[in-house]
Amino acid sequence: MNHQNDTVSAIRWTEAGLLLLDQRRLPDEEIYLQFNDAAAVAAAIRDMVVRGAPAIGITAAYAVVLSARRHVTESVRQWQSAVLQDMQLLAAARPTAVNLFWALARMQRCLEGAGSNPVAALHDEARRIHAEDIAANLRMGEAGAALIGKDSSVLTHCNAGALATGGHGTALGVIRSAWAAGKLRQVYAGETRPWLQGARLTAWELLRDDIPVTLLSDSAASLLMQQARVQWVIVGADRVAANGDVINKIGTYQLAVACRYHGVGMMVVAPLSTLDREMPTGQQVTIEQRSPDEVLQLAGRRVAAQGATAWNPVFDVTPAGLVDYLVTEAGVVAAPDREKLAELPDSQSGPP
Amino acid sequence: MNHQNDTVSAIRWTEAGLLLLDQRRLPDEEIYLQFNDAAAVAAAIRDMVVRGAPAIGITAAYAVVLSARRHVTESVRQWQSAVLQDMQLLAAARPTAVNLFWALARMQRCLEGAGSNPVAALHDEARRIHAEDIAANLRMGEAGAALIGKDSSVLTHCNAGALATGGHGTALGVIRSAWAAGKLRQVYAGETRPWLQGARLTAWELLRDDIPVTLLSDSAASLLMQQARVQWVIVGADRVAANGDVINKIGTYQLAVACRYHGVGMMVVAPLSTLDREMPTGQQVTIEQRSPDEVLQLAGRRVAAQGATAWNPVFDVTPAGLVDYLVTEAGVVAAPDREKLAELPDSQSGPP
Repeated sequence: MNHQNDTVSAIRWTEAGLLLLDQRRLPDEEIYLQFNDAAAVAAAIRDMVVRGAPAIGITAAYAVVLSARRHVTESVRQWQSAVLQDMQLLAAARPTAVNLFWALARMQRCLEGAGSNPVAALHDEARRIHAEDIAANLRMGEAGAALIGKDSSVLTHCNAGALATGGHGTALGVIRSAWAAGKLRQVYAGETRPWLQGARLTAWELLRDDIPVTLLSDSAASLLMQQARVQWVIVGADRVAANGDVINKIGTYQLAVACRYHGVGMMVVAPLSTLDREMPTGQQVTIEQRSPDEVLQLAGRRVAAQGATAWNPVFDVTPAGLVDYLVTEAGVVAAPDREKLAELPDSQSGPP
Repeated sequence: MNHQNDTVSAIRWTEAGLLLLDQRRLPDEEIYLQFNDAAAVAAAIRDMVVRGAPAIGITAAYAVVLSARRHVTESVRQWQSAVLQDMQLLAAARPTAVNLFWALARMQRCLEGAGSNPVAALHDEARRIHAEDIAANLRMGEAGAALIGKDSSVLTHCNAGALATGGHGTALGVIRSAWAAGKLRQVYAGETRPWLQGARLTAWELLRDDIPVTLLSDSAASLLMQQARVQWVIVGADRVAANGDVINKIGTYQLAVACRYHGVGMMVVAPLSTLDREMPTGQQVTIEQRSPDEVLQLAGRRVAAQGATAWNPVFDVTPAGLVDYLVTEAGVVAAPDREKLAELPDSQSGPP
């Protein structure tokens, strides 16, 4: 597996437990936290030690292994019910990334079909989910990069990179592949308020792989387009509805509107595990609201006037009509809609 | 003069000197710095002790009084040339706000026509510029508020308030007037990265006048519109070109694009002193770039990964075609264009 362009791995399984790179402390400190307890992993997902839709799914899968390992000495009925309880905790950790529910459904099927060595079977399944995600990212990287012309410049938003996935990344996977192919003049990243995934994570991860990156305030993106400095906006997704609507980090929709206005290409890169066939359109999603303090504070210090409140939706919905290309590991879908998405295969080994 | 809705005055003239509220330290500390020297005022404009196009103009006018007071004991030729030198320093302090050049031109005409008591004449002229700005804001406030229907919600960007003007404010003047008229359900303010004028200044100033305000990340504005939570975006301007193009804080253009896409009204509130009849279109302006550190740091601490660079244009250009209303003290211009702007009177007492 060609994984050479990617030196970051945020999720590591060791016999001692699950190691998660604490993304809240990047780029200042590179610290791995060790977990042996599924409930603690659920809290880590909620608190954004780990974030990014595919990474959350992989993490939850490994957490199920931790849960099984802990409870397997109990009677069969008891340990399986304890693991199912942990899975409910994990499912409740964050509401938006459908990969979380997808990975837990896979682990549950594995649990139900497990034979004499269930922990080993669950561990194998978690490793498969992880490896398949990396493989999907590498395929999507190549497919997305093929759309990009020579001497292009691109803008990305949030972090849809190795940190947000099993490795290589979705949007940053395309950028890594296009960079390796010598196609990119410049990579821009929106800082991505309020959590600053662009400034803190995307810049860190690209620079580690020697890909230069220029940050900008999120509100400067339209000027970048007006001045014809970018040809593509490339983002990941937390969920893609059955009609192609894209639920992703707050600001994605605003970029999509600006792309359409300026004739800049809008590329969404998401594995099939992100596709939610049960959700007819993006309008059915409940948009996660996080603490107003994320907006009112900077680096832990209040900056807004006392008494001010904040509206802090952390995702938004981009209608499919504003998406030029949806890149999946099963191929590229131009102008995605319900019919084209229905023709996509189900995620490999995933639930029916 | 009805000035009761406005308790903030950022620029104060006293016999001891010019007092400027240090806007860099808001909302944490309310500290006035005292100036007796025009060069120090120029540095204060550059360093953003004072900011906002009309406020910069008024400040520069008072700085000319300081300069004259200091040099008037020298021979006539010498003191006038010393004052002209200070005026050049002031003109170079910030490049975008045309009000700066407009106010200096007025002070220069006054200087050239001054009789036996030039300092008093200059002082009167500076006070006139200041008072006329407040009066213009009150007129614009009423005119803009008249456009707004009952039970509306509005979004503003940056700070175009009392802090940015002689008092009352341009965009915030309209919001103050509409609020006083009981028309507003909710006032939203974009935090306005990178300098956070929205979070730090607009929230502070509105809350002082008991107008509740809800902050949001700049990139959440389009979701606000998609959910039909606002009917108007109301902003000020640093310069309006002869064809109606609006140069204003970075992010204004992105909001204007989003307004057009969602059918939300785009209202620009700017006194006639902001109109640059010498500039045919906004494309002729050189967009001020400030230090990348404004993006790479938060509250003085670096947040972006080491090695990352940043693109930090602090203004952008909104084409006149995206502006629904330009509100001036001479009246409201719907769908502004070159012909309609040519019919506007020159700013009261301003240069020809």
